[in-house]
Amino acid sequence: MPQLDFDVITLGHGSGGILTSKLLAAGVFDLLKNPLLDTHHDGAVFELSGPLAFSTDSYVISPIFFPGGNIGELAVNGTVNDLAMCGAVPKYLSLSFIIEEGLPMSEFWEILVAIKFAAERAGVSIVTGDTKVVEKGKGDKIFINTSGIGQVHPQAKISTTYIQPGDKLIVSGYVATHGIAIMSVREGLDFETDLVSDTVNLNHAVKSLLDEFGSAIHLLRDPTRGGVATVLNEIARDCSLGIDIMQEQIPVLDDVAGACELLGLDPLYVANEGIFLALVAADVADQVLTKLRETDVGKQAAIIGEVVPEHPAQVVLTSRIGGKRVVNMLVGEQLPRIC
Amino acid sequence: MPQLDFDVITLGHGSGGILTSKLLAAGVFDLLKNPLLDTHHDGAVFELSGPLAFSTDSYVISPIFFPGGNIGELAVNGTVNDLAMCGAVPKYLSLSFIIEEGLPMSEFWEILVAIKFAAERAGVSIVTGDTKVVEKGKGDKIFINTSGIGQVHPQAKISTTYIQPGDKLIVSGYVATHGIAIMSVREGLDFETDLVSDTVNLNHAVKSLLDEFGSAIHLLRDPTRGGVATVLNEIARDCSLGIDIMQEQIPVLDDVAGACELLGLDPLYVANEGIFLALVAADVADQVLTKLRETDVGKQAAIIGEVVPEHPAQVVLTSRIGGKRVVNMLVGEQLPRIC
Repeated sequence: MPQLDFDVITLGHGSGGILTSKLLAAGVFDLLKNPLLDTHHDGAVFELSGPLAFSTDSYVISPIFFPGGNIGELAVNGTVNDLAMCGAVPKYLSLSFIIEEGLPMSEFWEILVAIKFAAERAGVSIVTGDTKVVEKGKGDKIFINTSGIGQVHPQAKISTTYIQPGDKLIVSGYVATHGIAIMSVREGLDFETDLVSDTVNLNHAVKSLLDEFGSAIHLLRDPTRGGVATVLNEIARDCSLGIDIMQEQIPVLDDVAGACELLGLDPLYVANEGIFLALVAADVADQVLTKLRETDVGKQAAIIGEVVPEHPAQVVLTSRIGGKRVVNMLVGEQLPRIC
Repeated sequence: MPQLDFDVITLGHGSGGILTSKLLAAGVFDLLKNPLLDTHHDGAVFELSGPLAFSTDSYVISPIFFPGGNIGELAVNGTVNDLAMCGAVPKYLSLSFIIEEGLPMSEFWEILVAIKFAAERAGVSIVTGDTKVVEKGKGDKIFINTSGIGQVHPQAKISTTYIQPGDKLIVSGYVATHGIAIMSVREGLDFETDLVSDTVNLNHAVKSLLDEFGSAIHLLRDPTRGGVATVLNEIARDCSLGIDIMQEQIPVLDDVAGACELLGLDPLYVANEGIFLALVAADVADQVLTKLRETDVGKQAAIIGEVVPEHPAQVVLTSRIGGKRVVNMLVGEQLPRIC
């Protein structure tokens, strides 16, 4: 961290005046340096063409530092992954902070460093931003919005309209890890575990699948808030087909399964940050699985279900002992501020 | 407002599950309807090419309803204007809410309606979004982030590097109106006035200038936080030239001037939302002024200064009585959460 003449962020740092300039010059611009950000204008200007994807998310996770990461990398990975789920190669991110006055500069710096490394890993540039500061008690340490632009992969044809009966459902890794890792450190809920969040960028793995299998990848979604169950329900509703899943195929870490039992939670409803679901043509499903398992983020990938013409708009789970039950959307709120 | 089975927004509405779906289906998707938003994916996909501009801002204004508008239209106009200042024609916006639980649905609806109309007026589509809800006391009613993408006008050549000594400085309208309108309703500060915020989209006026004068428009900036003084200082610093301004040419409403005197404020440091500054080649300055005055937002436009080779990186004001003084950047915080 650079030497600064302030330890905490104050309202003045959000004024747009000298203190804002000082804060940005002290770190943000240097740390995230790139030619577009360096123009210091109201926005960034760049050449980009072809079909584009555009996505946004605000991150309000609590606590802002959690096992396996912090709100900074989460904010980068989350928007990078949303773009990847559109079949796009993420290129440019915006970065906007809403800081509660009193945030220690050391914490802000740690978040900025995490942002820098996450952006580098994903291969995206942060090209424009904004910083606001609100009074103590009118925010909660820091909220971050990232929005992103990517170029749609030339071979990508991602849409619920391409989903066919027979399509195989692949999950790229362990389910429910992020949510349980966050719960393990929540006030009033904390329990002993070595679990860490799975927050990671998925764009390189997605690109390698699109490079090889193109339009055989019919849909991609990352099951964040609401978990796997909610996203599968949205997909089933949107394509008016049924989805069957097999409980015993769904990869869940032992610690996560144990914590879920302890807390009375179904892992299918717990939030994820570092996995995605893919619906792929049946004839390439095994090859997609093999390819995915060769990637850093897909070592635990598994085929967990398939699309069926029966029970349209419904998700049906076959349990370990062979029973069947309908899996609905998440109804209430399992754990607020999980991302 | 549609008939709903809830009156206030709760944590469950940010869960990503059924309640989130209900909230969005109840209003957001219908109200802001367009084919891209209708895909309900993690992001929007569209064709767009050429040099693009990309900008982001989070809006934390307090109060969220103020004379002349609310946080919704402010959030649309602000990002539309940032894109226009890049010389771009704004096309697509993202929209992300951070709502404090307990926000009455009627207030959220009023904000959504304002967003809808502001987007229509500016000619932009809201194509992707996000909704988060935080606990009571961890936010302040509602914060909004908008990010936007625009196509750079083919005739635009906007950059501090094009600024020349002799360039004329034009302001498109009355200075300091937004800031004083907000102050008039701030707790502890409220005073009698009929002033309303100047929040408005500037993109159509900017486009008409670029259509006619192209590269003779050297720089565009909207003097929001920090006011005219801060933005002029940034420009002078970035182009390493001096800027001279004449107090008697700067348009200020009588009520605003009166309130500034009462509060001991210099209107040059008060935030604006509906005006812009343009630095233009001297030989077309009068024509630019005439053209600008023909637009809805430019009726009070005036030439208020010029770029000079003397006192590089400094802004010097000639007062009504002929005295000269250096105008610095805003140092502290005049009024937090003005936008």
